[in-house]
Amino acid sequence: MKSIIATAAALILAGHAFAQDSFELDPAQAATAEALVAEALESDLAWSIVESLTTEVGPRMPGSEAEVRARAWGEALGQSLSFDRVTIEPFTMPFWDRGELEISITSPYTQALHGSALGGSGASPRSGPVESDVVYFRDINALTAVADGSLEGKIVFVDGDAMVATQTGAGYGPANNRRRIGWQHAERAGADAIVVRSVGSDFHRNPHTGMISSMDGEWANIPVIAISNPDADHLRRLHHTGAPLAMQIRATAGWHGDVTSGNVVLDIVGSELPDEIVLIGGHLDSWDLGTGAIDDGAGIAITVAAAELIARLPERPRRTIRVVMFGAEEVGLLGARAYAQQHAEEVGNHVLATESDFGAGRIWQLVSNVDAAANPAIDAVGQIIAPLGILRGGSNVPGGGPDIIPLAMAGVPTVRLNQDGMDYFDLHHTPDDTLDKIDPEALAQNVAAYAALVYLAANMDVEFRTPAEEAAAEE
Amino acid sequence: MKSIIATAAALILAGHAFAQDSFELDPAQAATAEALVAEALESDLAWSIVESLTTEVGPRMPGSEAEVRARAWGEALGQSLSFDRVTIEPFTMPFWDRGELEISITSPYTQALHGSALGGSGASPRSGPVESDVVYFRDINALTAVADGSLEGKIVFVDGDAMVATQTGAGYGPANNRRRIGWQHAERAGADAIVVRSVGSDFHRNPHTGMISSMDGEWANIPVIAISNPDADHLRRLHHTGAPLAMQIRATAGWHGDVTSGNVVLDIVGSELPDEIVLIGGHLDSWDLGTGAIDDGAGIAITVAAAELIARLPERPRRTIRVVMFGAEEVGLLGARAYAQQHAEEVGNHVLATESDFGAGRIWQLVSNVDAAANPAIDAVGQIIAPLGILRGGSNVPGGGPDIIPLAMAGVPTVRLNQDGMDYFDLHHTPDDTLDKIDPEALAQNVAAYAALVYLAANMDVEFRTPAEEAAAEE
Repeated sequence: MKSIIATAAALILAGHAFAQDSFELDPAQAATAEALVAEALESDLAWSIVESLTTEVGPRMPGSEAEVRARAWGEALGQSLSFDRVTIEPFTMPFWDRGELEISITSPYTQALHGSALGGSGASPRSGPVESDVVYFRDINALTAVADGSLEGKIVFVDGDAMVATQTGAGYGPANNRRRIGWQHAERAGADAIVVRSVGSDFHRNPHTGMISSMDGEWANIPVIAISNPDADHLRRLHHTGAPLAMQIRATAGWHGDVTSGNVVLDIVGSELPDEIVLIGGHLDSWDLGTGAIDDGAGIAITVAAAELIARLPERPRRTIRVVMFGAEEVGLLGARAYAQQHAEEVGNHVLATESDFGAGRIWQLVSNVDAAANPAIDAVGQIIAPLGILRGGSNVPGGGPDIIPLAMAGVPTVRLNQDGMDYFDLHHTPDDTLDKIDPEALAQNVAAYAALVYLAANMDVEFRTPAEEAAAEE
Repeated sequence: MKSIIATAAALILAGHAFAQDSFELDPAQAATAEALVAEALESDLAWSIVESLTTEVGPRMPGSEAEVRARAWGEALGQSLSFDRVTIEPFTMPFWDRGELEISITSPYTQALHGSALGGSGASPRSGPVESDVVYFRDINALTAVADGSLEGKIVFVDGDAMVATQTGAGYGPANNRRRIGWQHAERAGADAIVVRSVGSDFHRNPHTGMISSMDGEWANIPVIAISNPDADHLRRLHHTGAPLAMQIRATAGWHGDVTSGNVVLDIVGSELPDEIVLIGGHLDSWDLGTGAIDDGAGIAITVAAAELIARLPERPRRTIRVVMFGAEEVGLLGARAYAQQHAEEVGNHVLATESDFGAGRIWQLVSNVDAAANPAIDAVGQIIAPLGILRGGSNVPGGGPDIIPLAMAGVPTVRLNQDGMDYFDLHHTPDDTLDKIDPEALAQNVAAYAALVYLAANMDVEFRTPAEEAAAEE
């Protein structure tokens, strides 16, 4: 019985391989890609980069002076390595500052809470303390049902559940509703402030910050605060005792006019097709609570290190490899939007794009969204990186990473190397996003996969993009 | 070969059992102890107690109004359960308040650190900010070697290593030197403040607070601050870059005169020997960063629940069982010292004492320090709780728990049920000491072991104490 199943499985796998894998890699390119994998696994370059960024620059709030220093760091890094061209591409953005926050329970007794203003939060009146009775909502749906003006003089607390940790990060979207839109209903109902359970899977006293959603371009006029999961548990239990619950909040968060941010663009110029661009990258900005190690110092380090290994080869790749350190990702993909806008005329030259922005866990899956005719070529890349423990996933998966969205919407084909995100939402947007959370071996595995993928994509004679006439015919 | 070894091992074990286990438990008492174990494993009483204490009282700083509320809570709890006598025994103590703390790196760039004043810390001058260059010391030994007056106008940072997590908590003592005595050398050398790496085994942005050691009864005149392990790692890396490092500290910690604290004493009065006391307990106070769940709400819950299960039996035990909720443990065992002093005349009536104050992990070992003639009786108790996964450890191990030290020094025999402390120093004295860190099943296992041990100790016809004439002859 066992041998029959094994034989059947072998036949199925073989059939799959034959059906999909009609693309033959150039043997010399395949050998170089394998050599890059081996070299990357031995290299500590990515570790050095993320160590330098988190130590020497530290937290890098979008639009802040720290982000200016980060760009200077990125420019100097590119110049010190083997890149052919290093450019800072500035853009203008509004600056939001977290300010100061004091938040405590004041009834039934005084206890400080571990909270953080959410991006886009307003201040308390005259930046002084506001103390109010708390109205408890079991989840965001309960809050959205409240009548206009029904919460005057109250502080809203929106509970919910801690996220379940998953490999893919599934569950972040729905959980995030309380963070994103809760304030809109609290403000509509006249509340003094809104406090939500952090969107995170950990049980440490860490608030998880992150952006709220604007409403028709308007941001919150009241404090919008996330508290840690243990603090939210505590409030839930206090609520169930029936004791009257009050809080005091003093927040000075708010907007401070326009500032300059920018993307740092590092190019390895292609030898045959310099105008055709394989774009990779991560985002250079970070929230300020941690030092932006996993979000997204790791992505910067992985993609720069992968490109650098390719740049050290005796020959330049056929196509240009571009590493973009995007600015101001956390506050709404501002760098990515600016890039797509500033490069609108050459967007058609971007042959493939992907970003590393899901932490520093091992890559376990390769997914793609390219022209159907190019799938066998992606499968062939998959076979090169399969020994790294990477499975070939869907060939019709939109994405490529947050900062790739504007390019993908403009028709740029994408791939993505999915990382194990089991601990990502333990750390995401918290003070715990620090260098010690990165496993150097997992980081090197990431570099290996990116190096092979990007090297092959920049050299193989494949069109990843659906030809314009076919794309038009499909619409 | 294997069978020979197995036979030999069996013989050795059997020989050990025969040699040690010459004490025969009363069969009815053994059966009751086993029934208590079974009942405790099904009971959620301890969980309810620690949930109530951490939720309804919250953090309980020694000498604070919160500790007053905790005593009222303890008194009401004792009265609501089956205890025969509930007494609050007040004592006077000096009150130290953590105050406010702001600590940040100011050079090479600004970054807030996660720190906490250590118990006994002083304030910064006029409670305003002090900003100074940082002098880095790799460990406490490097600091103790500095010359008097050689650190004028500097802030001292004492690095060291994160603790290695162990089952027994080994390593806490040596690591703790930087916390306890670092300030004495910093002050002697004229420093403005001292910052130390937290004494803890975790890698979260949590400072670990705790008491410094006084010097001839004097406390620090400068801020004495602990920062989290990731923050200390960060400073170490910054130091290695060679960049000049500066910090700003504003601390308002200090002493505020005498206040009243107290112990809460809950008695189950013995039926035959009411003056003979088997004493168990935990400490009611906690540091204020967390809610004192594992340190030591768990100990209060375990010992109260164990005693309550015994009090619900149809008959009172022969001896009195006393649960003491000690006050002001964290600032120097003040409740324990007061208890020993206030009960000095009846200390000879304390037949056996033990405390639960090492978290809420499963108990894995029973150790003792009783008269040699009583060891077989302790071994017999060990056999009753062995099915809970508890090994019989040393029979000559001083201890019994921090609050038992003054009694043990006055000659009271002790036992201890050692808990698995693998995560204890991840959480110890941090904001993360919250209810969610307690595993209800492990908590119930603790109650089961205490219930059986205490029931048997209060009923068995055994003298745990070395008779006075023998003790005198030994000296």
